[in-house]
Order: sequence, then structure tokens, then C-alpha cells
Amino acid sequence: MDVTRLHPLWLRDNCPCPECRHESGQRLLDTRSIPDDLEIVSVTERTVTFSDGHTSTFDPTWLEANAGPAAPRPRRLWDSTLRVRSAAYDDVAAGGAALRDWLAAVDELGFAILSGCPTEPGTVTRVAELFGFVRETNYGRLFDVKTVVKPTNLAYTGLGLGAHTDNPYRDPTPTLQLLHCIASSAEGGENTLVDAFRVVQDLPRADLELLTGRPVRFRFADADTELETETPVISLDARGDVQAVHYNTRSAQAFRLPEDEIGRYYEAYQRFGRMLEEPRYRIQFKLEPGGLFIVDNLRVLHGRTGYSALGGERHLQGCYADRDGLRSRLAVLSR
Amino acid sequence: MDVTRLHPLWLRDNCPCPECRHESGQRLLDTRSIPDDLEIVSVTERTVTFSDGHTSTFDPTWLEANAGPAAPRPRRLWDSTLRVRSAAYDDVAAGGAALRDWLAAVDELGFAILSGCPTEPGTVTRVAELFGFVRETNYGRLFDVKTVVKPTNLAYTGLGLGAHTDNPYRDPTPTLQLLHCIASSAEGGENTLVDAFRVVQDLPRADLELLTGRPVRFRFADADTELETETPVISLDARGDVQAVHYNTRSAQAFRLPEDEIGRYYEAYQRFGRMLEEPRYRIQFKLEPGGLFIVDNLRVLHGRTGYSALGGERHLQGCYADRDGLRSRLAVLSR
Repeated sequence: MDVTRLHPLWLRDNCPCPECRHESGQRLLDTRSIPDDLEIVSVTERTVTFSDGHTSTFDPTWLEANAGPAAPRPRRLWDSTLRVRSAAYDDVAAGGAALRDWLAAVDELGFAILSGCPTEPGTVTRVAELFGFVRETNYGRLFDVKTVVKPTNLAYTGLGLGAHTDNPYRDPTPTLQLLHCIASSAEGGENTLVDAFRVVQDLPRADLELLTGRPVRFRFADADTELETETPVISLDARGDVQAVHYNTRSAQAFRLPEDEIGRYYEAYQRFGRMLEEPRYRIQFKLEPGGLFIVDNLRVLHGRTGYSALGGERHLQGCYADRDGLRSRLAVLSR
Repeated sequence: MDVTRLHPLWLRDNCPCPECRHESGQRLLDTRSIPDDLEIVSVTERTVTFSDGHTSTFDPTWLEANAGPAAPRPRRLWDSTLRVRSAAYDDVAAGGAALRDWLAAVDELGFAILSGCPTEPGTVTRVAELFGFVRETNYGRLFDVKTVVKPTNLAYTGLGLGAHTDNPYRDPTPTLQLLHCIASSAEGGENTLVDAFRVVQDLPRADLELLTGRPVRFRFADADTELETETPVISLDARGDVQAVHYNTRSAQAFRLPEDEIGRYYEAYQRFGRMLEEPRYRIQFKLEPGGLFIVDNLRVLHGRTGYSALGGERHLQGCYADRDGLRSRLAVLSR
């Protein structure tokens, strides 16, 4: 690579010498101190002398990898045809390649499943600690989901739970959720997961514009807590790619829109919400005692089909965590 | 308010009856189950019967407050003319109105200061627990900042630290940072804070477009950790208002831009970075032992002026937390 084709400010800002850059990769040079009119005075192979008197020697491999626009990070979106696999707790808990592969699945697909976990309470936070840090909230470090399913009617499916993301009323929204099955004697009640980023691909463009352009308030309140924040149902990043989905009909508050937009907004909102329930997008599996799943809570929605009329009990524990810890552990295990 | 002027889907979705809405405010009705062609069949004062057979009775005060577009949340931006006030630890730690006012300052101004805290290590997390939950990271629940200032040159100001936000390489970025002074015998070293949302107001529009439209990678790595994420320097929300600023010259990685954009991007980046250092925008105060400040880490940048040549030592402890806990505690205290 011909360094003289690169911008002098960019080169000077990225000088790798120990005076400009700490061995941790942190920049010691304050970019703001670089003169605006900086020029390259001379170049000898990979060594550049600047008009501020500084000399930098660049690694050609680093230049090749870092100059010019970055390729977008490939995304592997999925639908119902995805083959659902679960990893064994004992392998993953031992660390190494099995843990790396399990974390890579979360990073790539937005979820992963474990089987054979201990059924002791508290296991869910220990799994989170395999890669990162529990996000403590007003629900505690972990929360219990206990359901007693009472037989009522043979056709009863009312306990099904539509696909949703958790805690959209938090700022920031927890980026990871873990759910661990301690006991389950109920028939039915299968877990469903859907890759909302995949569904967004099929959403009409006009719907996408409404769902990204109008913030929705989400709220949860009890005696000790009052959480409220607003965010659009679909968020885009600076490149225009989908960055996050917040969909939760339980905590969504009344839409605050001009009267002439309400009808169109509901049309888009209902289309997206119903697509999230379509069998062609979702995967389904039964979490047995000792089973656990983790989801990227800004991408993969979770839900539950209805229980059968036979009744039974279910005891789950959940906790929240964040993506940075997971990706850090994955990167370190991949070194 | 004439309910027949409101959209039937909106009305049905916001039915407040105990079948549709839990006392916690959570919606029990799955919005997706509402028929698209729903109509209002009859209205008697505040009671509406819909074509799905459901009858809802609305509170006129609730309708007035929730129908139609929301007024934008007022923001109180500030510059160097802001009068800096600090609250007394003993008052705030006692809870009640003093705690409420202190939290309201964080919510409104993006920072608050405490004086007279105990100088015991660990105080910083106890202050965070007055309103919320510590965000644990690879740095621990809290981290130590110990500086030994060695006299070198009378004019030495090299230890000044430019205005920055913390940990932009985390996903999600911690939304609150607390810093507590345990000991300080060094002369100088004043803390600086700047309201980056105020600075953005004065930024030329073309600069804003570049700084919101181009993601920057931020990174931190050591033996056990590898954190990297990308976000633009300035993020806008769905309304087009400034939502977050990520500015940190130490962890920003080489900009990945087309060659013909590099010069213009640096022009915008340098203008913004230098504006963040301008005395007209920033406030300055000295954190003495027992002093503590908290900042909204997506809005208010912190920095430090240089130490004098007399030398000395400084020991600070910091921790991260999140805004949802703070706003919840503020809302509950304001009931």
C-alpha cells in the first residue's frame, strides 16, 4: 500500500509508536492536538515524517486491514428451517472450545440452548458468569417464574405467551436474557424463538419507516418501581441496518401520534406483530428441567405456546446480562 | 373529549378494564388479537361498545393526557454559566426530598455532585445503591484510579485529560458513571464537565450529519478482555433529537471511511472535539476527599485539568450504573 495515498491526519492519528499508542491499543496522543494543516514531509518505505516533526513507521498488514471502508459484518439470519441444536452443560461449563462455540452461536444467531444443567436454583446466574456479568435489576440478580397450570377447558391455549422482548422499559434494555428450567410437570408449553431481524427483511418498506420513525413508550410500575422509556419498535444503526427490536404488547403504552397517523401506524404494528407469530419464522422446542436458553434480547423474541389441559407446574429462573461481556469472552477464547 | 374522534383500534388497545389491563398497568390483551376491521358500535358518554363485543369505559382525564402527540420532553442544556452546586452526602443518604432533588439534577442536567462523603473505599458503590444497581464489568464492581503526580517542569500540564465519555467500547455503554475522591494531596487537577448536547447545538449541520452518519469503532483489550463495538460519535433518536455522544480519543480506532471522506470527517471530528474543550461550555470544580460526582455518560463528558508541578497523590474510586434505576427511584420519590 502506498502510504502517500492515505490522508496525513488519518496516518498521524494512527501512529503506532509507543509515544502515541499504549501497548493496550489505547491512543495516548490526543487527536485534537494534531494541527489541521499537517502534511507529509517525507516517506521512506513504511516510515513517514510529518510536518509536526513526528515520524511514524506503519505495519503494511495493519494498513491493508484498516484503511478504507470496513466490510459490513456478515449476519446469519434464520427462520423455522434452522436446525435447533443444544450444547451440553458439562462441556460448556468446562470452558475452552465448547464454551467458545456456544458463545459464538449467541453472537451469530442471537440465541443458544443448553441441556443437562443442574436444576439447583441459582444455576442461571452461574451460567451468565461463565462469560460475563449479571445485570442486577429491581427484580434482583435473578427472578423466578413459577406457573401452576390449572386444567380448565380442553381447547384452552390462553396461557400461550406471544413473542416479545423483555424489559423494553429499561434504559438501557438488557441485551441478553437467560432462562433456566428447574422443574416442569406441565404438558405443552413449548418455547418459541423468532429472529426479528429476519422478519424485518420481509416487512414492507412503508411499515419499516413507521416502526423506526415513531417512538413508543414502554412502562412498568409497582409499589417500589416506576420504569418508563421510549424507543421505536425497530431501531436502525448509523449504516441503516436493523440494530434493535423492542416488541412487548404488555408494557407498550398508548401510542402518542397525530390522529391521522394512528390507523397507518396500527396497520404496520399489527402486520409486524403477527409476522412475529408466524410458524414459518419461528423455532419451537421444549425446555425440560435442566434446560436453559439465552437470547440476544434486542434481536430474538421469545414466547411460549399454550399448555395442555392436563395441568402441572413449571418453575423457571431468569436473569439478564449484557453482550459486551459475552463478546469479550468469545474474542479471548478465539485468540 | 369526544371519544368517537379517536381511532377504534387505539381505544380498544387501551381499554382499562381489569380483563384487558393488569393493575400494574401491564396490558393483558394481546394487541395482535384485535380485529383489523374493528368498529365502534355505540357510545354512551365515556363507555364505548366495539364490534368485537367488548365494552370499555374510559377516564376522560386519561384520554386528555394520552391521546394525540406527546409534547417533547423539555431539556435543560447548560454551559459555563451554570452555577455549580453540590449536595451534602448526609442529606442525600438519608433519602427523601434531598435524594429526590439530587437525582432530579442528574436527570435534568446530566450530572450532580456530592460533598462530605465518607472517604472509606467502597463508598462509591454505596452511593450508587442509594438509587439503583451497580453495573459490574471486567474492571470489577468498582475500579481504583491512583495517580502519583511527579514534579517535572513548572509549565507541565501534560497530565490534563481531555473531555471524554467512558467505555464507549461496551455494548451497551454504561449510562451512568460515579467518581469518588478518597485522597488528594495534589495541587491542581480540577475536574471538568461539559454538556455535549449543548455543544451539539452549535455544531454546523454538515458536521452533525457526518458525526451521526458514520460509525466509529471503539476498542479496549488486555490479557483477559477484548471489548469492541461501533457507534457514531453522535447518535440521534427516532425524533431526530440527540440521544447519545460517544467521544473518547483513547479508545477510538482508525476511521474506516472512503478515502474521499476522510478529510471532511476529520474536519467535523476535530471541530466537535475542540468545542468540547472550550471554556465557554465547561464547568470546572475541584473534587476534594469525600467529594463525588455522577454523570450521564451518554451526555456529559468529563475531563481533568493538569496538575501543578508541586506533585502529590490522588486516589479515586469509580463505578458504573444505569439510568433506569435512577429514574425509577426519582419517580417513586416524586409520587
